[in-house]
Amino acid sequence: METESEQLPLVLTLRHFPFLPSFQEKFSNKFTTLERTDLSVPIEEYLLKHGQSVRALVCGAKFSLTKDILDCLPSLGCVVLTCVGLDNIDLDECKKRGIFIGNAGTVYSEDVADFAVGLLIDVLHRISAGHRFVSSGLWPITKEFPLGPKLSGKRVGILGLGSSGSEVAKRLEGFSCVISYTSRTKKPSVPFSYYSNIVDLASNNDILILTCDLNNETFHIINKDVMSALGKKGIIINVGRGALVDEMEMVRCLEQGEIGGAGLDVFENEPDVPEELFKLDNVVVAPHISVVTVESYLALHDLVISNLEAFFSNKPLLSLVKYN
Amino acid sequence: METESEQLPLVLTLRHFPFLPSFQEKFSNKFTTLERTDLSVPIEEYLLKHGQSVRALVCGAKFSLTKDILDCLPSLGCVVLTCVGLDNIDLDECKKRGIFIGNAGTVYSEDVADFAVGLLIDVLHRISAGHRFVSSGLWPITKEFPLGPKLSGKRVGILGLGSSGSEVAKRLEGFSCVISYTSRTKKPSVPFSYYSNIVDLASNNDILILTCDLNNETFHIINKDVMSALGKKGIIINVGRGALVDEMEMVRCLEQGEIGGAGLDVFENEPDVPEELFKLDNVVVAPHISVVTVESYLALHDLVISNLEAFFSNKPLLSLVKYN
Repeated sequence: METESEQLPLVLTLRHFPFLPSFQEKFSNKFTTLERTDLSVPIEEYLLKHGQSVRALVCGAKFSLTKDILDCLPSLGCVVLTCVGLDNIDLDECKKRGIFIGNAGTVYSEDVADFAVGLLIDVLHRISAGHRFVSSGLWPITKEFPLGPKLSGKRVGILGLGSSGSEVAKRLEGFSCVISYTSRTKKPSVPFSYYSNIVDLASNNDILILTCDLNNETFHIINKDVMSALGKKGIIINVGRGALVDEMEMVRCLEQGEIGGAGLDVFENEPDVPEELFKLDNVVVAPHISVVTVESYLALHDLVISNLEAFFSNKPLLSLVKYN
Repeated sequence: METESEQLPLVLTLRHFPFLPSFQEKFSNKFTTLERTDLSVPIEEYLLKHGQSVRALVCGAKFSLTKDILDCLPSLGCVVLTCVGLDNIDLDECKKRGIFIGNAGTVYSEDVADFAVGLLIDVLHRISAGHRFVSSGLWPITKEFPLGPKLSGKRVGILGLGSSGSEVAKRLEGFSCVISYTSRTKKPSVPFSYYSNIVDLASNNDILILTCDLNNETFHIINKDVMSALGKKGIIINVGRGALVDEMEMVRCLEQGEIGGAGLDVFENEPDVPEELFKLDNVVVAPHISVVTVESYLALHDLVISNLEAFFSNKPLLSLVKYN
């Protein structure tokens, strides 16, 4: 006779899950977890030994789901991601194998948008720099703190008007900003101006906010030409992925005053961040935390569990990613 | 025969004005400036000697316009302020003398609101703390950064739904926040819930944003009882005046976790800020810069000049303060 535990569906977690201890019991009651705890064992070796019957996998943005890994998981039918972006997934291979992918859906969209607006105000009004100014005791001594530019009424170009980008737009309308956007296709139901290419978006805006996915078309989409078009007062806010921006070129532009400032939650080689940025008061950096709030993590846990339950019940995933 | 300069109206500036050199010529072409440059001469002595015919005065938030000063300016008919708040003006004395007062009107309202929202997101999402975390090189070492709470959907109570408070509300509606307010009187045209007292406002909200004037009724209005009502997760954002808050009590509440965080642009004894605040990652401090942007300073200069021109042409001031 099988134990109850053996009857529970097996889920491979290649990012420790649940993140929140409060979900451990709920998760354990529904699934048997397979987790590679001894990282000295090569992952392929581990998977070939333990993963042959695994039908469902939970992983995050930092794990690369390559063809080699997929080859070690012959029974895989479902990948549930704790992130939104698909840049670390070999989508062609997954499609070929008929694997269902569920991502974090819109769980983080509000938080990412809140964070993007916060970064933007911080850069313009020099909030982090002001905090340093006060907490280092400079205020009583120098008194003067440089003027920043106003946010209200500025022209804001959003790259990628998906779920997060739309939430950014909704917020910035409350600041009387003039919104425009670039995305793969013009969205007929949207009241904002559309630019079909990023250089035009940059030329016609004071601020660029990057919320799009990273893929072959968007890698280094913010390059020298775009920054030149954005201009000396232009601000870049990146809450998408680090490699949307040619980071080395951006650092150069910031150091030489060729753009006006940047608010960056993501970087090309996280957790490494170019140190040159730390010297600039018009730059705010954050450790890829835009998505992380208590509430969104709770929602993510519910979504991951619901996606897994749906898969094992032969129902559609709640946040199913559609293949092109 | 009088020179052209002597024919220009005389304006006493007790805060150096114009702040922006680009306005110096415009100002000099319209007015003759009287400015006490030798600060070793007591102000009363200076005014008794030079100020007897002065009809118009420009001053700011840091200058106290007391009865004693007014006694030294017998011809004064108009005070043009570079700030919004009237807390440093003896209003009863000004009213008695029939002096017109023009303040900064709504010039700063958008910037103050932008800044308040920026401070709020910074406190919740720990943006300044995140910047310190990254720029001090901790990210590659500790990896984990604590979760903050979500902004979207939170209940926000605004103290003082004037020009700045209304702009804050407009912005936070874009974040799906639930807005309520306390002010001297219920505003019939406003869709937000009204609380007639500040303890009720605090009890029913996650966040308090202070945008009201400082006066006898609002001094230390945020006291121990209010902070207790706001609770352990409650956030205070102060872009009004430092003395709206019992600062010593707030520092204690923050240190002991009796409230959840604070974003502070103003303090009781500026530029002195309690050092205890610098140790707390849930506190963001700024050097009274919420009103200061390039654009609002330009608008302020235009407004000051227009107010003075109106006064000397016997027209109503553009941003006339009404006496109670």
